[in-house]
Amino acid sequence: MIQSAQAFAAPFLDPLALGIVAGGTAVALILRTPLGDVGRATGALRTLGRKRFDAGPLITQIEALSRIAAKHGVMTLDRSVITDPDVATAISDIVDGKDGVTVAAHLAERQTARAERHRTASDFWASAAEIAPAMGMIGTLLGLVRMFLAMEDVTAIGGAMAIALLTTLYGAVLATLVAMPISARLRTQARAEYVERMRLIAPLETLATREAPRWQRRAEAA
Amino acid sequence: MIQSAQAFAAPFLDPLALGIVAGGTAVALILRTPLGDVGRATGALRTLGRKRFDAGPLITQIEALSRIAAKHGVMTLDRSVITDPDVATAISDIVDGKDGVTVAAHLAERQTARAERHRTASDFWASAAEIAPAMGMIGTLLGLVRMFLAMEDVTAIGGAMAIALLTTLYGAVLATLVAMPISARLRTQARAEYVERMRLIAPLETLATREAPRWQRRAEAA
Amino acid sequence: MIQSAQAFAAPFLDPLALGIVAGGTAVALILRTPLGDVGRATGALRTLGRKRFDAGPLITQIEALSRIAAKHGVMTLDRSVITDPDVATAISDIVDGKDGVTVAAHLAERQTARAERHRTASDFWASAAEIAPAMGMIGTLLGLVRMFLAMEDVTAIGGAMAIALLTTLYGAVLATLVAMPISARLRTQARAEYVERMRLIAPLETLATREAPRWQRRAEAA
Amino acid sequence: MIQSAQAFAAPFLDPLALGIVAGGTAVALILRTPLGDVGRATGALRTLGRKRFDAGPLITQIEALSRIAAKHGVMTLDRSVITDPDVATAISDIVDGKDGVTVAAHLAERQTARAERHRTASDFWASAAEIAPAMGMIGTLLGLVRMFLAMEDVTAIGGAMAIALLTTLYGAVLATLVAMPISARLRTQARAEYVERMRLIAPLETLATREAPRWQRRAEAA
Amino acid sequence: MIQSAQAFAAPFLDPLALGIVAGGTAVALILRTPLGDVGRATGALRTLGRKRFDAGPLITQIEALSRIAAKHGVMTLDRSVITDPDVATAISDIVDGKDGVTVAAHLAERQTARAERHRTASDFWASAAEIAPAMGMIGTLLGLVRMFLAMEDVTAIGGAMAIALLTTLYGAVLATLVAMPISARLRTQARAEYVERMRLIAPLETLATREAPRWQRRAEAA
Repeated sequence: MIQSAQAFAAPFLDPLALGIVAGGTAVALILRTPLGDVGRATGALRTLGRKRFDAGPLITQIEALSRIAAKHGVMTLDRSVITDPDVATAISDIVDGKDGVTVAAHLAERQTARAERHRTASDFWASAAEIAPAMGMIGTLLGLVRMFLAMEDVTAIGGAMAIALLTTLYGAVLATLVAMPISARLRTQARAEYVERMRLIAPLETLATREAPRWQRRAEAA
Repeated sequence: MIQSAQAFAAPFLDPLALGIVAGGTAVALILRTPLGDVGRATGALRTLGRKRFDAGPLITQIEALSRIAAKHGVMTLDRSVITDPDVATAISDIVDGKDGVTVAAHLAERQTARAERHRTASDFWASAAEIAPAMGMIGTLLGLVRMFLAMEDVTAIGGAMAIALLTTLYGAVLATLVAMPISARLRTQARAEYVERMRLIAPLETLATREAPRWQRRAEAA
Repeated sequence: MIQSAQAFAAPFLDPLALGIVAGGTAVALILRTPLGDVGRATGALRTLGRKRFDAGPLITQIEALSRIAAKHGVMTLDRSVITDPDVATAISDIVDGKDGVTVAAHLAERQTARAERHRTASDFWASAAEIAPAMGMIGTLLGLVRMFLAMEDVTAIGGAMAIALLTTLYGAVLATLVAMPISARLRTQARAEYVERMRLIAPLETLATREAPRWQRRAEAA
Repeated sequence: MIQSAQAFAAPFLDPLALGIVAGGTAVALILRTPLGDVGRATGALRTLGRKRFDAGPLITQIEALSRIAAKHGVMTLDRSVITDPDVATAISDIVDGKDGVTVAAHLAERQTARAERHRTASDFWASAAEIAPAMGMIGTLLGLVRMFLAMEDVTAIGGAMAIALLTTLYGAVLATLVAMPISARLRTQARAEYVERMRLIAPLETLATREAPRWQRRAEAA
Repeated sequence: MIQSAQAFAAPFLDPLALGIVAGGTAVALILRTPLGDVGRATGALRTLGRKRFDAGPLITQIEALSRIAAKHGVMTLDRSVITDPDVATAISDIVDGKDGVTVAAHLAERQTARAERHRTASDFWASAAEIAPAMGMIGTLLGLVRMFLAMEDVTAIGGAMAIALLTTLYGAVLATLVAMPISARLRTQARAEYVERMRLIAPLETLATREAPRWQRRAEAA
């Protein structure tokens, strides 16, 4: 079975054609994208396997932290281990005595910056989906030009045509089955994370609004 | 007649070509869409046969419920059978003593969430209409590459070309006559349902505004 | 002359090819458009020959009606023959004693509904301009597949190719010279009518504002 | 040199092909555009050679007029020769005793109407750039159909193909080197004129604001 | 190695084809763009090698200037060497005694004008990326027409086809690997500079707000 699949696939594999399309697309992307954004966009691939972001556990944690703050004072939150960067930032703000409005504004700012980063990554792959077919066509044209220049040997035309068309094939596959799905997934993930993270702002703002005056009293008392 | 149609259609049917286009489009769609959205988009196909959503009967029902509430008290609405989820939610809110503004806000929120769900379904089929021709081209390129590699047998070229072109044909038909009409219909249906359902908010808000104070008096009396 | 034109045109006429393109486009349009909108879009073709809508005569008529109302009372307007539906609705509102704001709001609502109807019609023909070339390509692919399957007879290839290309030709002509011009004309007409009809609102609002209090006095006196 | 250029160009000239593309594009444009807009769009070609609109001299003229009005009274402006239609309209308003707000509003209205006219002209040529390649393809399809129907004479195929391709060539040249540049230029010119003319409003409004009360006093005195 | 690369590249180089695509694209761009914008767009190429604009050093400089103004009076700033045009303009405004709001408004105006200039340059290259493939196709059509007109010599067809396809190849390469990356880079750079420069406004506004009243006192004292 595997052998017959290999036998079926063999004529469709050509390292040079693959190099032209994949390499050319990579070059065009690097030419048009600042290096930092390239790193971010390829780094975003690691998040594709992750489950949809769920604010639920974080909200439970915030409630637990809120109870701790109510009992033992907001200062004790300093010692808790918080893995989520947004919650950690907000708690650190609260421990510093910032009020609700400031904490919410800080979180909103982080949301906007994150959305911008996510958009950059998803746009990178959308660009790849645009460039890959163009590179495929460039490869095919290269192949056709070579073929037409060496047409004395009519029997070789078939093979040359086949290889020339392979780059267009690779470009279309790369765009339709790789780059476009990655871009679409990243966009969907980013939107879902944005909406979920919005749910974190209210409880953290409430906590800050409750603790800020107490903090101040304690600070004044000290 | 049927026989001649079959004879006419026979050369245009090729299971492998159909598999490449339909299967490839499905794979590309699944790669780029979260699983829940795939289910929702295919589930939306069941609604295509339905008649245009009409708020008329629901408004009549709301008027009937309003009369019942006026005579026997709002609590009795609890027993009525309401099939529409929006009306059911609103009546349940009213039985719980929520005021008009709250009920209207809750309905508006449900409207927005429904519009988002409908948009996801219609976008899924719009994506299918984009991907199908690309998969058709990929199939044709696969066929052409195979053909060019086996060109010794000149008599076989015609048949190979025919099969290669079939995938482009299937992609175009799938996009133009299946995916695009589904997407357009879902969009039109969603817009019509949105506009019709808007007519439900006012009478339910009025009912809630009338019953909320009475409910409170009764609650206070109890 | 006519004979030579016929001789020139003859090879470009093929009923089957025409049927595939025109029929296929019609089917795809009917699949994606609610039946009511199809009727409206085809009905809109009758308005193409009409002159640009001019609000001038209607404004003259409104002035005449205003003089009649000032002399003989607003009730007498009931008897006047008004062919324009917007003016008729507004006059009927005024006769019923509605004030200026209500009449203007009613007219604005009618304007919005009319603009939506016109947009639906013009979008229908824009869709036709998109679908026709796709159907043309489908027809050509059907023709090419048939041709490649019957390539033994080399002398027949030319004729088969010619017929195959005819559908692409029909699709392009249908889109460029029929559907796109209709869509653009309907859009221009609709915009012009919208702007012209806007001029009707002010005089009708003024008339209503003048007559509403008089009407009320008379109603109170009665 | 010229002779060799002619010899080079000769095979690329074909009156019928040119007629199909240029004529077909013209027909499609006339079908979709109201006659008045066609005249306006072709009339706009005369403005292409003009220098970028500069409000400087007009502002100098307004200052001169302002001095005259201060010395000899605003009525004397009536006799001055003003070629720019906007300035002439504003001065005529000022002579009639209109105040600053009215004059500025009148000028803004003229600006909007002019922008709309300019947009119509630039859109006309953008449409031409869309239609020309489609007409080129239609011409090529006509040529190919004819060629395939008369394939007995194999030696004639080359010439027929050449003529068939000429229409596509003409369509691409017409769009890329004629219609698109015209549309882009008209758009740039219109934007520049809009921005420049904006500078005229303030000094004319100031003049009107200064003269309107004086005018009134004089009118009252009279 | 270099020799073999030359041998590989040689068949893909054709001065005439390159001239048609590059020259034609340049002509089309010059036809559609005012001369000043052409100069600005080509001048923008020099900025491509620059590092991302960083407001950090400028903010440090503003802080230093602020300390100098606090110690020695705002007039002394006149003597400092400031290379950045925005900061120089703002300091010159401050030395002239303008208040914070005026300085901030002036900087915002300069930001808008700069953004407009940057957009013009990036749009120019985006247009080049659109025109280059069209010119490539025009060149290929020219080549094909010539080839079909001289088909007696069958052995020459291959070479003619090869040269005809080269222009399409050049057009695609020019668009994908030159014009599009330039346009994208310029856009990214412009956005980054815009965001960074926004950080300059606050400290300069603060400085102006602090110094304006002191300046006035001194001016009054003088």
